[in-house]
Amino acid sequence: MQDYTPPLDDIRFLLDRVLDLPALLETEKFSELDSETVHDAIEAAGTFIAEVIAPTNAIGDQVGTQLQPDGTMVTPEGFKEAYAKLVEAGWGALTFDPAYGGGGFPEAVGIALQEFMVSSNMAFSMAPLLTQGSIHAINSVADEYVTETYLAKLVSGEWTGTMNLSEPEAGSDVGALRTKAEPNGDGTWSITGNKIYISWGDHDMADNVVHLVLARTPDAPPGTKGISCFIVPKFMVNDDGTLGEPNDLKVVSIEHKMGINASPTCTMSFGDQGGATGWLLGNEFDGMRVMFVMMNMARLSVGVQGLGLAERTLQGALAHANERVQGKVVGTPKEDRTSPIVGHPDVRRMLLDMRSITEAMRGICLMNAVAMDGASALSDEDDRQKAEDLNELLIPITKAWCTDMGVEVTSLAVQVFGGMGFVEETGVSQFFRDARIAPIYEGTNGIQAMDLVGRKLPMRAGGVVTDTMANIRTTIDELNGQEELAGIASRLSEATDALDEATQWIFANSGDIRDVLSGATPYLRMWGLVVGGWVLGKSALAATEWAAEGGDEAFCTEKVRTARWFADQQLPAVAGLVPRATAGAALMDEASL
Amino acid sequence: MQDYTPPLDDIRFLLDRVLDLPALLETEKFSELDSETVHDAIEAAGTFIAEVIAPTNAIGDQVGTQLQPDGTMVTPEGFKEAYAKLVEAGWGALTFDPAYGGGGFPEAVGIALQEFMVSSNMAFSMAPLLTQGSIHAINSVADEYVTETYLAKLVSGEWTGTMNLSEPEAGSDVGALRTKAEPNGDGTWSITGNKIYISWGDHDMADNVVHLVLARTPDAPPGTKGISCFIVPKFMVNDDGTLGEPNDLKVVSIEHKMGINASPTCTMSFGDQGGATGWLLGNEFDGMRVMFVMMNMARLSVGVQGLGLAERTLQGALAHANERVQGKVVGTPKEDRTSPIVGHPDVRRMLLDMRSITEAMRGICLMNAVAMDGASALSDEDDRQKAEDLNELLIPITKAWCTDMGVEVTSLAVQVFGGMGFVEETGVSQFFRDARIAPIYEGTNGIQAMDLVGRKLPMRAGGVVTDTMANIRTTIDELNGQEELAGIASRLSEATDALDEATQWIFANSGDIRDVLSGATPYLRMWGLVVGGWVLGKSALAATEWAAEGGDEAFCTEKVRTARWFADQQLPAVAGLVPRATAGAALMDEASL
Repeated sequence: MQDYTPPLDDIRFLLDRVLDLPALLETEKFSELDSETVHDAIEAAGTFIAEVIAPTNAIGDQVGTQLQPDGTMVTPEGFKEAYAKLVEAGWGALTFDPAYGGGGFPEAVGIALQEFMVSSNMAFSMAPLLTQGSIHAINSVADEYVTETYLAKLVSGEWTGTMNLSEPEAGSDVGALRTKAEPNGDGTWSITGNKIYISWGDHDMADNVVHLVLARTPDAPPGTKGISCFIVPKFMVNDDGTLGEPNDLKVVSIEHKMGINASPTCTMSFGDQGGATGWLLGNEFDGMRVMFVMMNMARLSVGVQGLGLAERTLQGALAHANERVQGKVVGTPKEDRTSPIVGHPDVRRMLLDMRSITEAMRGICLMNAVAMDGASALSDEDDRQKAEDLNELLIPITKAWCTDMGVEVTSLAVQVFGGMGFVEETGVSQFFRDARIAPIYEGTNGIQAMDLVGRKLPMRAGGVVTDTMANIRTTIDELNGQEELAGIASRLSEATDALDEATQWIFANSGDIRDVLSGATPYLRMWGLVVGGWVLGKSALAATEWAAEGGDEAFCTEKVRTARWFADQQLPAVAGLVPRATAGAALMDEASL
Repeated sequence: MQDYTPPLDDIRFLLDRVLDLPALLETEKFSELDSETVHDAIEAAGTFIAEVIAPTNAIGDQVGTQLQPDGTMVTPEGFKEAYAKLVEAGWGALTFDPAYGGGGFPEAVGIALQEFMVSSNMAFSMAPLLTQGSIHAINSVADEYVTETYLAKLVSGEWTGTMNLSEPEAGSDVGALRTKAEPNGDGTWSITGNKIYISWGDHDMADNVVHLVLARTPDAPPGTKGISCFIVPKFMVNDDGTLGEPNDLKVVSIEHKMGINASPTCTMSFGDQGGATGWLLGNEFDGMRVMFVMMNMARLSVGVQGLGLAERTLQGALAHANERVQGKVVGTPKEDRTSPIVGHPDVRRMLLDMRSITEAMRGICLMNAVAMDGASALSDEDDRQKAEDLNELLIPITKAWCTDMGVEVTSLAVQVFGGMGFVEETGVSQFFRDARIAPIYEGTNGIQAMDLVGRKLPMRAGGVVTDTMANIRTTIDELNGQEELAGIASRLSEATDALDEATQWIFANSGDIRDVLSGATPYLRMWGLVVGGWVLGKSALAATEWAAEGGDEAFCTEKVRTARWFADQQLPAVAGLVPRATAGAALMDEASL
């Protein structure tokens, strides 16, 4: 597949003209930044990531990170060097607190970079991603010792972080975990237990690996209430910041997986020699709170994985379809056998589906990120609360819809490549295989749907959902104000009516939770489509406005076409999901399974 | 994943009570057979395949068939032995002419066996499948020499067959191929050229490999009209039937693929030493006709691949969901942490989607096969023509819808397994990876959709389509006659109305072929859903009738539930596809791609 090009114009257009990043940059929190600085950074990072990280992708898949007989973990050729360059360039630190060496940029900018990273090498991207999760956790709850000891090294990327949640009998059900933490009497804790599915649990790219480990203290209550979070370094850290003795932990084995082969998925053992030394993060029983600190950001980032893989295969499929000659294109002169397959209607359909869905995904991810930034940066409390509400509502939608669509779009790319897509040589199949994990981890998409109907719909007694639908209707009104966009308005209006109908049904049936949960996944799909149509509707409005102001006409025209395609081709599915969302549990509970 | 169990009860119910196999068995062609003989054979074959073939599946994926440095091809451990047992048991010969050692059974029975083979080991199943294609071709067009020399050995499975169509610049566009055939003057031909994507192009399971090769004779007209088909054996066959010298052909390389690793996908070179010796099949320029002889059967069989993989992962997901404990099941007592995940509404939704779609796929495949049998066996010309029409209409729907659903259902299985589904250890991911080839080969699903709107809709000036929809409405009337089934009738009626609407639009716009082709894939999807709903509607009627006659009540009740689930959960999508099917090509042709 062809080389990767970061979609800089699309991101700039979305951030500046559709999602109002400029308003965010006027807040106190981001007062040091202006639009040019932000876009210069995005451009420079995009260039760096495409040049340095993308070339490591194929070998990462073919070779994978390997556990050696001596217990060390070896990354594929080029990974160590690429990681060192990333640390040197400092892109991983962009969104963090300048007090610890961060750049102080909005999360929305970090999400743009995260897209580039995933498009370039998803498996590699998970090392800095998990590190970022650790930084968020430490930054929010750790005491001075932990903060001073670890934060700057994690922000710089010299050390990487992990999250140790899952155990064999405790995956989605975190509350069932059994790893133990006993106090040593000197403020440290002794950790013993086994963890599974630990991404980047060990590797050779950084000097130290800092594990966040969920465990139970003595006499902890059962379930999630009794969980505490500990920081457990691979190497102990001396008082002067240098590395000391190895801690009592090791990688027991790594998984053989369908994709993301370069990201080692480790089974970890803590305390084989008596106990790994750990420090409590926050207070005892704060474990779930610490996880929740990281969770929104992690779920948004996993949504971006769907986006990044979709974008990469869209670029590949477009290039392939414009080169590959195969079959007579209907409508070309009779003897013409030189028209590439991009002329075939069915190939155009696939490419336009891929493009419109990918742009909708990007719109959702960045809308979510801007809302997340707004929740921490806006000074007007009403505005800030609205941003926080939107962020909370969007998180499960972003995570689940974008990861489902990541599988869908990469699968379409395989289809555009035909037989060449199924053989590994072209590289497109790697993205399809990599994409399949994202609907599973960081809370399965079924769990996201439960979060949407169980936690997000009840926010402000349904007010958040109702307000969001009202905002969508405002966009519909604006679209209706322009003749060329009225077709989009009509499709979006029908889809929003259907969403409203299903939402009212859920409110009316919220007393029977099995009825509501039975349709939660189709209901989340409805939200994904409607928010995708909404953000593309906003994009069409912004493009029309920009074109009138003298903006790039070809670009703007194409944005309107993409929004129309999504409205005409994707939004009609929403009404068909109402029966699925509102069927109730009677038939499913009757069935013998 | 758990062991495979052939779904004998479902197949017997479908064949005997839903699709009227008994009527077929009353024809002259199948007069030697009765229902018990047929079902005894299906049961014995199913037991054999599950016991002998299924255990080879995982190693086939892990090791793959390998090209050795000396040019020989080595299948994974156990393949040779399993194949020898298959030949000895004779199941591959079941549907062929008794004159050449076949069993004379209906194709519908062969399709049932094909499902078992795919569920057990799809990669392995392709060796006998391609052999069957060669038999069909030889049986229909070959002269006495070729027939006498090859047919009995292929029917018995002692030798296997291949199809050599694709070349680097001639995949979907067969007419672009360049392989040459020059007459040797003695009735044989000299073949030179390269072929790609040749499944089972060589291996160590059989003594000889018989290649059907498409090539151009001197002065052949360009395009598909100038293609002839040759039979080119790996080893020359002496007059006494023993094997002679190797022919001038070899495997140059094999592909590294996403799935079906045990099925070697070969690049073949013919005539490196001057020319491989071949015999013309049929007449010069008959190549496409020969391919068409095999094509319907091959496309139906590829549709069955979607079914077989879906069934296998459905069994695995059901077993896993009934074992795996994870999370509190809503509605169980507060402290119960022992209920398996099959109790979670979202897991039940996935399992019921999987089951209802899989049963719809089986219904479509067997309905298609019974129609294919009817086209050759029914004595009343009107009935026979109707069966042939239905067969022709269903072929692209069976191939495309069932292979798309194969990807969908195996993906749902991965999701039910969660993290364990993404790691290779559980085996479920292999089925998902294997499934991804089926929408591509044997005519991409886009080509199937072109076949549906371009060749099948115009049959009898639209009469075939109109008659089929009328038959569906007859089933709807019957469903409406029973109170418990009226809900199914209502959903199926709405879906059929939508299908009718899209069909009328295509008839009205048939003058602009790009407009029609732009929506062909969504239109085919509509047919898949409606025919799936139709055959499950028939199943619900038959189950209700059988239960009243004292049939297995639990079985019958479940069949009605499955039909209701499909009707309530899948059929509402049909109406949402009308805008996609009828959008026309204007926007897609405007877009810059």
